[in-house]
Amino acid sequence: MSEAARRLLRTLADAGVEVCFTNPGTTEIELVAALDSEPRLRPVLTLFEGVATGAADGYARMRERPAATLLHLGCGLGNGLANLHNARRAGVPVLNLVGDHASSHRAYDAPLQSDIETVARNVSAWVRTCASAGSLCSDALQALAAALGPPAGVATLIVPADVSWGEDAGAPVAPVAQPARPAPVAEAAIDDAARALVDAGPAALLLGGHALREPALLAAARIAERSGARLLAETFPTRMERGAGLPAVERIAYLPELAAVQLDGLRSVVLVGARPPAAFFAYPGRSGDLLPPACTACGLAAAGDDVDDALQRLAGRLGARQATPRLQQPALPRPARGSLSAQKVCREVGRLLPQQAIVVDEAQTSAVMLPLYTAGAPRHDLLTLTGGAIGQGLPLAVGAAIACPQRPVIALVGDGAALYTLQALWTMARERLHVVCVVFNNRSYAILNLELQRLAGGRAAAGARSQFDLGEPPLDFVRLADGLGVPGVRAATAEEFAAAFAHALASPGPHLIEAVVPPAIGGLKLRLLPRLLRRLDAMPRPLARAIQRKVAP
Amino acid sequence: MSEAARRLLRTLADAGVEVCFTNPGTTEIELVAALDSEPRLRPVLTLFEGVATGAADGYARMRERPAATLLHLGCGLGNGLANLHNARRAGVPVLNLVGDHASSHRAYDAPLQSDIETVARNVSAWVRTCASAGSLCSDALQALAAALGPPAGVATLIVPADVSWGEDAGAPVAPVAQPARPAPVAEAAIDDAARALVDAGPAALLLGGHALREPALLAAARIAERSGARLLAETFPTRMERGAGLPAVERIAYLPELAAVQLDGLRSVVLVGARPPAAFFAYPGRSGDLLPPACTACGLAAAGDDVDDALQRLAGRLGARQATPRLQQPALPRPARGSLSAQKVCREVGRLLPQQAIVVDEAQTSAVMLPLYTAGAPRHDLLTLTGGAIGQGLPLAVGAAIACPQRPVIALVGDGAALYTLQALWTMARERLHVVCVVFNNRSYAILNLELQRLAGGRAAAGARSQFDLGEPPLDFVRLADGLGVPGVRAATAEEFAAAFAHALASPGPHLIEAVVPPAIGGLKLRLLPRLLRRLDAMPRPLARAIQRKVAP
Repeated sequence: MSEAARRLLRTLADAGVEVCFTNPGTTEIELVAALDSEPRLRPVLTLFEGVATGAADGYARMRERPAATLLHLGCGLGNGLANLHNARRAGVPVLNLVGDHASSHRAYDAPLQSDIETVARNVSAWVRTCASAGSLCSDALQALAAALGPPAGVATLIVPADVSWGEDAGAPVAPVAQPARPAPVAEAAIDDAARALVDAGPAALLLGGHALREPALLAAARIAERSGARLLAETFPTRMERGAGLPAVERIAYLPELAAVQLDGLRSVVLVGARPPAAFFAYPGRSGDLLPPACTACGLAAAGDDVDDALQRLAGRLGARQATPRLQQPALPRPARGSLSAQKVCREVGRLLPQQAIVVDEAQTSAVMLPLYTAGAPRHDLLTLTGGAIGQGLPLAVGAAIACPQRPVIALVGDGAALYTLQALWTMARERLHVVCVVFNNRSYAILNLELQRLAGGRAAAGARSQFDLGEPPLDFVRLADGLGVPGVRAATAEEFAAAFAHALASPGPHLIEAVVPPAIGGLKLRLLPRLLRRLDAMPRPLARAIQRKVAP
Repeated sequence: MSEAARRLLRTLADAGVEVCFTNPGTTEIELVAALDSEPRLRPVLTLFEGVATGAADGYARMRERPAATLLHLGCGLGNGLANLHNARRAGVPVLNLVGDHASSHRAYDAPLQSDIETVARNVSAWVRTCASAGSLCSDALQALAAALGPPAGVATLIVPADVSWGEDAGAPVAPVAQPARPAPVAEAAIDDAARALVDAGPAALLLGGHALREPALLAAARIAERSGARLLAETFPTRMERGAGLPAVERIAYLPELAAVQLDGLRSVVLVGARPPAAFFAYPGRSGDLLPPACTACGLAAAGDDVDDALQRLAGRLGARQATPRLQQPALPRPARGSLSAQKVCREVGRLLPQQAIVVDEAQTSAVMLPLYTAGAPRHDLLTLTGGAIGQGLPLAVGAAIACPQRPVIALVGDGAALYTLQALWTMARERLHVVCVVFNNRSYAILNLELQRLAGGRAAAGARSQFDLGEPPLDFVRLADGLGVPGVRAATAEEFAAAFAHALASPGPHLIEAVVPPAIGGLKLRLLPRLLRRLDAMPRPLARAIQRKVAP
């Protein structure tokens, strides 16, 4: 192995990089060969680049430091692009190392040559092609600093093969600086937020990013207790701490019809690490702005600001520092019975959720009840689909499990999304990760059926509907899991699911449960959704109450 | 459905677009709803965008006209990027329709928003974001014209959701023009090529692109017969017609060590639709230029030129128009016996290859013997990995089978590559395509082990080697295929493989055969490769003869 490659890995390890999610090729061979020289850097092989990049995202969410990825030229980066998009939206640090042809080889326009920098810019806050072996380590540290931020982000260092072959490792480089503490917000922002909460009428704190972690949650709950404001969370948080003993926070719903119910009546929303609530997609004749017309948004702290400090100061301003925050009490759903449904899966997950679980939720339609049923469960972290690009759930679980080997990881994924990056199962088996994968098999892209219904109404004919039908041929996730080295089991009743889930939680290594469920939301009329939620037998929660008020005034 | 969406599909169908490979989302819902209005446009659902784009490539290679793809925003395009890269390198027409958020929605920077045009430029010869429903059809026809060329290429039309909702379909547009015939080459190029073949010493015609189709092959063989020049083909052709009754053409080997043997002694190479031979990757201390120092390259026709006309004129200049081209005689390998190896799989494929098969070869290491064993098989088309981005084989087979429903398709893929886009199997089952997928399971990224050996020699330790090891846990392709709705069978002996292959060829629908083989080339010393080839018991072929000359002078 070359001195440059060896020094690069040592420099990264010195700077605290502990894991590299890999899917390398010939242009990265020297870096692969150098892995043996740096035992502090754990290589984790993936079968597809989207698994590597999604795992780096999940790792960063839980470990709060960047993992590296090792990817093969522009096409490898392209395969990892969707999950890097999700990582960018999550605002987490990721360091991509992307090999390229040797500089001398570019003249030949060889088959794999493409414009890597252009692809990288789509997702990266920092992109550079390393010019020489002598600058490799300093470039890597600059990339790392850019990834750490604040704001944290994706940094991509392109390493031509001849750079990684080099024997000149350059002058020693200083270790990377720890990320600067985010800047405190201006006093005027505290003033404005205090006024918005006290004077404007019904108000809410909308929490996002680091404001969904324990210190900020407690401060926000004290403010809520003192001011009467409600606590809301952004729709797709990077990482949300929740469960019994923490303040309960209601996520704004993905569907604008439900979000409208949640936000109805508010006159003021104070943004803390979150942006003004907007619809995920645009729909004809409907504004993308989810706030009611009479409601104004007031920015207390943006994602890159010091949200803890801002909330503490706001609490001080409102005399709320000594207030007793209202905390979620332990409360478990009753056991479900009979033929399985998505709702029953969520209920059993809530009932059986172990202490300190990490829950990855990428089952957009099926897991709609999950927040209700897990609200009073033991404390856990929730990781969600920040960028909306499906195929994230299983890779994210890989990274979270590598980051937190002592904590059980539960990944809830839809059938359509699971099929994007199913290769993650193999890495779970290879690394013996304790991940319980629950695949909701409703044999459809249920959310798209819902959208088709919204846009095309009853007019959509068989050809269009068949584009969202995954039932012919049926997908068999048990065999798929077995084929990738993960034991799989199918559950068609609530009892079967509960037994399989409890067994998987109690047994080391990865497991997959195929939950056979009817096409939940997809088969329903959109206008019936609020009524469905009203009939929930879970503990009362603000969203359910709000919907009840709206639907049955 | 909107008038704009309906008119778009009608316009595409009028222009000869027959197939749309889809993986749509909410922003494409109106286009999906409109599918029912245009029965001439067949939607083919895929579970992953890389399958859609690879299928469009395979379709275009066989049908010689573009398919459309329907993709979901920048992330969907990103997932399809690697196979669009392969399509770009193949020089085939592809028309991407990529949905985007409604224009009004961009202000919200919603989760899925990203810079689609930037990603598209990496692979597209033509990119445009449609500005209004009124220009949708004319934009689509311009995209189609750009895709058709010449030169053919990838065209990407981004369709914001509000454009596809529009009711103003614009003024009627003229049907798309047929692609202009490529320009004839200058007379001076004919002169130069004639001199290069006659005066320079040992010479070869290096054929690529359309020069590997029957008319050009016959003209080239007449020239070879008259001038004594050898016939060579580029390493990774888009589509190569071969087999008994056609001139035999030797592809330049992927490994530079073998290519050097093939090209040794040549003084002149005339390029016909091909570029000067260059190494796939750079290696320290080795030139990327594969031609021997004393050999000069002479360009008769580039990929976009009229290669048929150029070869006819060159044949005329050399008095070769009436020459009798030397044609490959029918010749089948003897049956293989005993425990399976990659070589035996290739032998059985050659022995049992049906008439008019389409052979997709993405088994870079395992299928190294395939050209030898299929040389005398019935006429067939060979499709190869033009851009070097793996995950192409199974999607390419989907597209080829849709394009040519009467022809059997045989896809030879490595285990590592198969795992990139295995979702293609589901589309094969859904569309009942007659594809026989042969997965070489050697439990490794064999080609990367070879490269590791080349670069790191015996110095690579366990950590590095484990990065190319796919054996723990073992992959079970039979279960994976079954899980995706394709009957799978495992073959561990030559007899089992022959029986399974014959059965699959005789039965409708898709089949998968997992060929359990030892880690073929990966386990060998690189310097032993020529010796291995020398021991081949297949029919003598120029490469084998050349290697024999070199290794045992």
